Amino acid sequence: MSRQQRAELDAMVRRPRPEGSGSVEELRAGFRAMMAEMIVPAGIRTRATTLGERPAVLVEPAGTPKAGTILYFHGGSYVVGSPETAMSLTGNLVTRTGFRAFSVDYRLAPEHPFPAAIEDGLSAYRALLDSGEDPSAIAFAGDSAGGGLTVAVCLAARDAGLPVPAAIVAFSPGLDMTRTGESMDSKAGIDPFFTREGMAHTGAMYLAGQDPHQPMLSPAICADLTGFPPVLLQAGTNEMLLDDSTRMATRARDAGVDVILDVTADVPHVFQAFAGVLDEADEALDRAALFLGQRLRTKGSVTPGRSVDLR
Amino acid sequence: MSRQQRAELDAMVRRPRPEGSGSVEELRAGFRAMMAEMIVPAGIRTRATTLGERPAVLVEPAGTPKAGTILYFHGGSYVVGSPETAMSLTGNLVTRTGFRAFSVDYRLAPEHPFPAAIEDGLSAYRALLDSGEDPSAIAFAGDSAGGGLTVAVCLAARDAGLPVPAAIVAFSPGLDMTRTGESMDSKAGIDPFFTREGMAHTGAMYLAGQDPHQPMLSPAICADLTGFPPVLLQAGTNEMLLDDSTRMATRARDAGVDVILDVTADVPHVFQAFAGVLDEADEALDRAALFLGQRLRTKGSVTPGRSVDLR
Repeated sequence: MSRQQRAELDAMVRRPRPEGSGSVEELRAGFRAMMAEMIVPAGIRTRATTLGERPAVLVEPAGTPKAGTILYFHGGSYVVGSPETAMSLTGNLVTRTGFRAFSVDYRLAPEHPFPAAIEDGLSAYRALLDSGEDPSAIAFAGDSAGGGLTVAVCLAARDAGLPVPAAIVAFSPGLDMTRTGESMDSKAGIDPFFTREGMAHTGAMYLAGQDPHQPMLSPAICADLTGFPPVLLQAGTNEMLLDDSTRMATRARDAGVDVILDVTADVPHVFQAFAGVLDEADEALDRAALFLGQRLRTKGSVTPGRSVDLR
Repeated sequence: MSRQQRAELDAMVRRPRPEGSGSVEELRAGFRAMMAEMIVPAGIRTRATTLGERPAVLVEPAGTPKAGTILYFHGGSYVVGSPETAMSLTGNLVTRTGFRAFSVDYRLAPEHPFPAAIEDGLSAYRALLDSGEDPSAIAFAGDSAGGGLTVAVCLAARDAGLPVPAAIVAFSPGLDMTRTGESMDSKAGIDPFFTREGMAHTGAMYLAGQDPHQPMLSPAICADLTGFPPVLLQAGTNEMLLDDSTRMATRARDAGVDVILDVTADVPHVFQAFAGVLDEADEALDRAALFLGQRLRTKGSVTPGRSVDLR
């Protein structure tokens, strides 16, 4: 990236941190403020709806959507964030693929610790299937903790005997609540978002005393990924969670899963949120869109707004 | 892939093997016969030319090429193959990107062991640069041993003080002549192309007694990749060379290089050659084309045939 882009980006990210040590409400407000600076692409239509047991935001492209649905899980360490804070990412996937997305407003910790978020994600997916959506036309996508949910909800779906979705796209996913990746140490100080202490702070809210050594919490180190659909993992080299992606890729490969590990040098956690500012972000989103277009076996288009309320 | 696709593919690949134990001429004839079954895309124009000290084939798309040049290195264990045997791969990159390609007819072992092929590749690259081509508009691409050449020639260029190209695309590259990847054992018997014995047979011709523990022969395990351009590695899970790519990706990441490790499940070595037959091949080539389009910073188009003879 250019020197100016780097300066703009640093100015953006060296702000109130989602995983600081403030109160939960302060963390949420700080995250909202930071993410409000991200550029939401023009031309998308959003509408509040419900999916399963939870509120959700339906995001549709301008014009007629292509048949195919992205179930999106926002980031925020399972403690902060909402469909709105991830709208730059969700909207960019929608405009670049032509698919609609449902972004799930899953329950957050500490009020609702593990496995509440996963239950909500599974319930949203089940609602999509119950509405007649073909799993071959559904992808899971998410960033950071939401990237973790793409994998955990897929595990939950498989374990519940549901068909898995056609693809998973995870931007800088958190896939190891034991925090044992080498990059947790090697990228400390380089990562402008995270500190080990901050991650422990929010992590404790989500764990609520539960053992992190289980597949739904640390899939990169202990999940059986057999039967998973193709996975695209994107991460930056300037992030402590990098090795969540690298270990997930190895584990997926070993399970016979198609996996693309797409690492961009010298960019931070969820750099795709800087679309419109940072070339690397736009290019990564284009690669994600191509991947989704290849994986969602869809024909034709759907009537816009067909599934306003799937509860 | 479908059962029928798998059957067709198995029928294709369980044929005379490039790395069998026959004479060099038999190996070359067998490889030519196998690769002649691959589908060369319609609409490309090819012309014999020279590049540096060696013959090459200029491959251009129908219509006006976009500015940008792919320097292609064919596969064949450094012993067999030619620009013609890789024309399916080269042609597919050309049609999908709109860039022209030069496919280098580098010298082969055993007549010309290491480092003859690398010298020829470097000489071809130098000729492109000397003709006025901007390195930011040049990508190296190759398959198998040619994938190894993409990396070795980039190392050689960097070490010679030349600017590096803008991108590297390597299909199932061979990047470790010490043959120490785990997949050398774990995929033995699964890989329909290679056996350890066959690889040793051709490998000995290329090495000609030289130590494989050097960066130009085993970059995945001992090259300093500092300053490398973005790299796309594509491999299948059914190949003994899989871990050449996985280790290269780790090494590139650690050197701060953009790297995409794109692994397709249940497909063999250089499955992209099955474009037109195997969906995974076409999809992988589309991802490679997007990557090349993102990395080659080109503007406008060139006059077709501008660089007929760059010697």
